[in-house]
Amino acid sequence: MSLVVVGSVAYDGVETPHGRVDKMLGGAATYIALSASYFTQTRIVAVVGDDFAPEDEALLTDHGIDLEGLERVPGKCFYWAGKYTPDMNDRETLTTELNVFADFQPKLPESYRLARYLMMGNIQPALQRDVRAQMKNPRLAGGDTMNYWIHDHRDELLKTIAGWDFLLINDHEARMLSGESNLRKAANKIMEMGPHTLVIKRGEFGAMLFRKDSYFIVPGYLLDDVFDPTGAGDCFAGGFIGYLAEHGFSLDGDHISRGMLSRAVIYGSVMGSFCCERFGVERFRTLERSEIDARFEEFRKFTSF
Amino acid sequence: MSLVVVGSVAYDGVETPHGRVDKMLGGAATYIALSASYFTQTRIVAVVGDDFAPEDEALLTDHGIDLEGLERVPGKCFYWAGKYTPDMNDRETLTTELNVFADFQPKLPESYRLARYLMMGNIQPALQRDVRAQMKNPRLAGGDTMNYWIHDHRDELLKTIAGWDFLLINDHEARMLSGESNLRKAANKIMEMGPHTLVIKRGEFGAMLFRKDSYFIVPGYLLDDVFDPTGAGDCFAGGFIGYLAEHGFSLDGDHISRGMLSRAVIYGSVMGSFCCERFGVERFRTLERSEIDARFEEFRKFTSF
Repeated sequence: MSLVVVGSVAYDGVETPHGRVDKMLGGAATYIALSASYFTQTRIVAVVGDDFAPEDEALLTDHGIDLEGLERVPGKCFYWAGKYTPDMNDRETLTTELNVFADFQPKLPESYRLARYLMMGNIQPALQRDVRAQMKNPRLAGGDTMNYWIHDHRDELLKTIAGWDFLLINDHEARMLSGESNLRKAANKIMEMGPHTLVIKRGEFGAMLFRKDSYFIVPGYLLDDVFDPTGAGDCFAGGFIGYLAEHGFSLDGDHISRGMLSRAVIYGSVMGSFCCERFGVERFRTLERSEIDARFEEFRKFTSF
Repeated sequence: MSLVVVGSVAYDGVETPHGRVDKMLGGAATYIALSASYFTQTRIVAVVGDDFAPEDEALLTDHGIDLEGLERVPGKCFYWAGKYTPDMNDRETLTTELNVFADFQPKLPESYRLARYLMMGNIQPALQRDVRAQMKNPRLAGGDTMNYWIHDHRDELLKTIAGWDFLLINDHEARMLSGESNLRKAANKIMEMGPHTLVIKRGEFGAMLFRKDSYFIVPGYLLDDVFDPTGAGDCFAGGFIGYLAEHGFSLDGDHISRGMLSRAVIYGSVMGSFCCERFGVERFRTLERSEIDARFEEFRKFTSF
């Protein structure tokens, strides 16, 4: 079933211990949509400037991604540049140029509004709420956020996630949002804010899924080399929601089992791991669904006892 | 089958965000033996001073631990005091008084030498080698070490672990010992140094097991409260080797399956998690085997998909 993805389509400059790229396709919506496109029909809502390159557009359309909701306006695309620490568990932002993204007002094409799945990348909480309101009757709606909104726009964010089915954030954000350092306690507090399903991403250490009466934890995939972690969290989100959409899962009531959600977390982890194998979106130029399913089985092998 | 544990029996002073204890029973051999005692007949080789309290001895004998190899000499027990960081992922050593431990020369009683399992806590590599030589024909011999020996006594340590079946260390130590930051590469290098089985402990993030042709990763148990992580790594070691000894497993050739080793890692994780629930060895005053097996099943539940 079809999935609407809202967020940034951008250009990034990235430096890791493995090298440096000054300008490459990036943005949360790009990563989420590329990742989800392996599982389900994916539709993007975003804004780009007139520097958005035809070859970058082609990468998205080659993955069958619907760009009817990709607004094009005069100016330049959102640009972010950052540099990773040697262990790549942290990064420093060098440049943020909002450009056309500064006035982004997401408008969902009519054909998008009946989609059953909605994944909102990290943008202003007020815009996320507005997007959610434009959807007719999604089975599953949720998204991501970041420290800036948690810290400086807390009330706005709380109003927004109160209407979400699921929230995907990292461990630092979960601690900041809840005020609890223990992740089990943090999860319980966050689920009281609205989302009945919470995924906490832990980078190289894996991910956790919490619901009111159960939880699931998976370690991270052990890569031979991490070239560039940019977008890994968004690819996780794309694999997670993509798998649920592929199977038409609903989280209403008890229509979804812990097993289904756990497998969605594994597919999220698989997609995040592939993302790190090359710079930026490069890995998605060659990645095949069969490789994804093989890595899913590898997860089963190295975690079962 | 019986297990010989070599290391320190000591007193610790510990401060965590949950409180402070100035003097309590501790030491690697204490934690390893208490943990392993739930699985198999356990015999300690260590040295204590004349301040070793009868009630602390009673805790060990109440767990059926053989103290024939516990040497008693004039002077005071080894004493260590440390303070944990607020997130308890790191600690600062405040005091180290070697006392009677300074002249420790482990001597295995005749009745210990035929034991089939040997677990050496973190002591001088030369002493570990000497202990290994005193054992007649163990099925499984291995142990732990720490940054100090890796950094300042590398040659001695390499000579020692060359004769081990297994090595249990934490992720920082694995990186230091191998010179590789990637843990998969680190594991491959370390296995070339001798041990055919390597366990890398990652604190709250769980543990990994590596053999030449397979690996296994488990996330950490999610505790409601971590009171005191002191001894958790040693309790992991005790659960790991204890489970293998309980079932008479051998690592020679292919006599042991990945499944058996994985379950040993889970039992190690279970014992490490219990250790953190109270200060020092307190949890072992009440812990029952049924609780251990129940937590093992909980691991299966929150990791399976």
